[in-house]
Amino acid sequence: MLNWNNLDTLASYQELEKAERINLAEVMSGENGAERVKTYSTPIVDGLTFNYAAKAVDDNVLAILDKLAKEAQLVEKYESLYNGAVINTGEKRLVLHQLTRGQLGGKVEADGVDKREFYVTQQKRIAEFANQVHAGEITNAAGEKFTTVVQIGIGGSDLGPRAMYLAMENWAKKNGAFKMEAKFISNVDPDDAAAVLNSIDVEHSLFVLVSKSGTTLETLTNESFVKDALAKAGLDASKHMIAVTSETSPLAKSDDYLAAFFMDDFIGGRYSSTSAVGGAVLSLAFGPEVFAQFLEGAAEVDRRATNKNLLENPEMLDALIGVYERNVLGYPATAVLPYSQALSRFPAHLQQMDMESNGKSVNRFGEPIDYVTGPLIFGEPGTNGQHSFYQLLHQGTDIVPLQFIGFKDSQIGTDVVIQGSTSQQKLCANVAAQIVAFACGKADDNRNKNFEGGRPSSIIIGEQLTPKTLGALLAHFENKVMFQGFAWNVNSFDQEGVQLGKVLAKRVLAHETDGALKVYSDLLNI
Amino acid sequence: MLNWNNLDTLASYQELEKAERINLAEVMSGENGAERVKTYSTPIVDGLTFNYAAKAVDDNVLAILDKLAKEAQLVEKYESLYNGAVINTGEKRLVLHQLTRGQLGGKVEADGVDKREFYVTQQKRIAEFANQVHAGEITNAAGEKFTTVVQIGIGGSDLGPRAMYLAMENWAKKNGAFKMEAKFISNVDPDDAAAVLNSIDVEHSLFVLVSKSGTTLETLTNESFVKDALAKAGLDASKHMIAVTSETSPLAKSDDYLAAFFMDDFIGGRYSSTSAVGGAVLSLAFGPEVFAQFLEGAAEVDRRATNKNLLENPEMLDALIGVYERNVLGYPATAVLPYSQALSRFPAHLQQMDMESNGKSVNRFGEPIDYVTGPLIFGEPGTNGQHSFYQLLHQGTDIVPLQFIGFKDSQIGTDVVIQGSTSQQKLCANVAAQIVAFACGKADDNRNKNFEGGRPSSIIIGEQLTPKTLGALLAHFENKVMFQGFAWNVNSFDQEGVQLGKVLAKRVLAHETDGALKVYSDLLNI
Repeated sequence: MLNWNNLDTLASYQELEKAERINLAEVMSGENGAERVKTYSTPIVDGLTFNYAAKAVDDNVLAILDKLAKEAQLVEKYESLYNGAVINTGEKRLVLHQLTRGQLGGKVEADGVDKREFYVTQQKRIAEFANQVHAGEITNAAGEKFTTVVQIGIGGSDLGPRAMYLAMENWAKKNGAFKMEAKFISNVDPDDAAAVLNSIDVEHSLFVLVSKSGTTLETLTNESFVKDALAKAGLDASKHMIAVTSETSPLAKSDDYLAAFFMDDFIGGRYSSTSAVGGAVLSLAFGPEVFAQFLEGAAEVDRRATNKNLLENPEMLDALIGVYERNVLGYPATAVLPYSQALSRFPAHLQQMDMESNGKSVNRFGEPIDYVTGPLIFGEPGTNGQHSFYQLLHQGTDIVPLQFIGFKDSQIGTDVVIQGSTSQQKLCANVAAQIVAFACGKADDNRNKNFEGGRPSSIIIGEQLTPKTLGALLAHFENKVMFQGFAWNVNSFDQEGVQLGKVLAKRVLAHETDGALKVYSDLLNI
Repeated sequence: MLNWNNLDTLASYQELEKAERINLAEVMSGENGAERVKTYSTPIVDGLTFNYAAKAVDDNVLAILDKLAKEAQLVEKYESLYNGAVINTGEKRLVLHQLTRGQLGGKVEADGVDKREFYVTQQKRIAEFANQVHAGEITNAAGEKFTTVVQIGIGGSDLGPRAMYLAMENWAKKNGAFKMEAKFISNVDPDDAAAVLNSIDVEHSLFVLVSKSGTTLETLTNESFVKDALAKAGLDASKHMIAVTSETSPLAKSDDYLAAFFMDDFIGGRYSSTSAVGGAVLSLAFGPEVFAQFLEGAAEVDRRATNKNLLENPEMLDALIGVYERNVLGYPATAVLPYSQALSRFPAHLQQMDMESNGKSVNRFGEPIDYVTGPLIFGEPGTNGQHSFYQLLHQGTDIVPLQFIGFKDSQIGTDVVIQGSTSQQKLCANVAAQIVAFACGKADDNRNKNFEGGRPSSIIIGEQLTPKTLGALLAHFENKVMFQGFAWNVNSFDQEGVQLGKVLAKRVLAHETDGALKVYSDLLNI
């Protein structure tokens, strides 16, 4: 029997509030610091490790967090989720994104359908389709190969797949797995679609229309925009478009598309990169085998996240350290700082996944809660960020916990030696240096040059960013956010906060407004 | 005589703390709300207006902010800055980015040089050079025209120019002003340079090396990376590269470059888009006339920002409302939300400009201060953000003030009518709807669907994003950040917080580490 209790009612949470705070600058100094870096570390998958030495925790805090994990039944709740419980209480839905990449518990059925089989079937259909496109068996009307794939989608149908595409593009080019260039149209701003269309050869482009409901305003508008452009180019749109949608959507059985691939209501948009939503565009871009490796990395993390030992479950550990920082230490935000240009849009994806999941003020029963929940998430790749907002992170008046990510090897492998080191070594030297600079600081009599330190960070260290480690990285954060939602006792899988804006926007377009909204509409010429 | 006092010592600040808080949801409702939207508005330049109706201020708070502006002598400090005072106390430097786009006060001389003349001369030299490139008078060794310009720089040499390029690219294409495609290499991650080089035709590419000091690690490393690639392609690097640097840097008089254009120590990196740093790449991409229009928009804002009447000085007003939100209302962050895909990287530029300027814990005399300073800045374009992190903004436990930006017309002008409205109208309808949804909320008995409202925002409304309005937009935020720095009594023009990381990174590369830093270095294979 699961107990869904608010965080602040847990005995272990009250103990956590009273736990002695550690002096991070002190414990990270000298041999003690070296020892922490060696021991405060746990593998995520082969070739990817979570190191939390520079977090403001010690064995005592970790022991209380372990109690909290048990008292809040975090792993049991995860088990319940992957065994098909209605975890999304608001919308009364199962939550099955983990099932898109592997069978974790018992068979999960809904409406008489074995859901694992359903997801596998869609993957196979996509794989066959992609292989046929790559082999030139599915072509444009002139019998010529498609060279470009364009995803039309917004939110989870855009951010995750786009971030994943960018993360694998150079790896695929280097490793002979690059099949087609991918582009993305998301914004309802007409200049977004127009600019993408101007940059491609539409005659050899395949468009992937992604909308679970088949009713997303931006996506349907952009579909029309694209169809207009295809018609103007004398092309038959139905030969250039596929749909990724739910079986019950208006897009599912339309002749407007070459093919339709399915997801369902149990896959939230922000968790859909491993479903058909990511599957279609990524399989077309890099081939189905690469997509399968990506899924395997995610599945491995999902399996490891069932471990009840906090120190051997990096997702749960990362989650609870975050809860400690947010609720006990009172930090408002987390910065995601990948030292990898390929992960340039990964922070934007995490921003959605985390903030849309846990940016809630009521618990899963719709009751107000008395503690803060999801933090602000933002970030840019290093070393770029160092020359931008790190000033505030080092010397600003608020402390912002940091999530570094770094890899020993680059993806392309081309490099130069300048002053005795490669660019990749310089990149890695910088991330190592930053962790210590943030944690330990450096006293200076000139207060303007003084660094207080005590600014916590963790780092995920990988061998190389590959499809498999990328899948693992994605699942690490998905599961972290899930565990945090359990700890905060919120429903991480709905997003009622996006509804009011939609309703009001419709009213503006129907010219059914008054008061302030009418004046804004007039000012904006609507 | 200027008084440089800490914010919390000002009588007007103490009055501000005691001022009655307004109920935003209430004042923005009904006819009162409509009236606010009409009156709480002030022009930035022709075609660009700052509307602050949905900020949590009323006439009483605004009157106190006006007192604060006068007590803190904000305009007088600005006058002192543009007349050449040593405003950057830490580095003992003048602050002259406004002078790159116009003469505001008296002649400013440094080391016997008329600085306005110096900046104008550099602009003219760049304009001539760009015109010669466009005319095919300066070519590659084979006598062929350059088609691509690649900026090599990081931080302010990257974020601002890149954001400005993206903001004008479609406008230029539409208006016959597009001369050359621009690309940017910034990160020391070797995959950044390698991927850009793989995407261009190096034989027809001109590289702009940008480093004020001529010693920036990332930039010099990437220069070598590019030179390597040019050599491998059998090309003479010195015929493919220009430098933008200070006259005293090692790059200034080198035969390694086709030409060198100059900035100086009085232009901070994050304020350098209107100097040669932005001038070279933008003039090459769009022609010198477009760059001149961009400067004119900025200059107009600089002139308006000298107005001592708070309500007629949108930069000072925006600044002080921000101080009120940060210090009195206690909000930790600001989200920048442009409803314009062309401004996709504008939030990243503001993130540097704002956070690097005002993320400080000591005042301009190096004394610790007892109040918070610069907020976290993050953002993505709308409507994309609506499908991402807006959930937290609407229903999360923290309030985050919002900075919307919207334009009546798109840049390209291609559009479709779906369900009775264009995409551009849908875009504008969404931003109008969001402002009201955030401010007013909507009560619902189902607490999960309840919107508390009371979430403040302002909007900058423009006719169209053009070079001139873009320049104005840029200068609006530059001057806002400057006024906030004056109010907080910090030095907004140095960045000592970036130094410690650099020092430690050098130590790692020299293998001169111990303790935690050594273990991290080992883990990262350095």
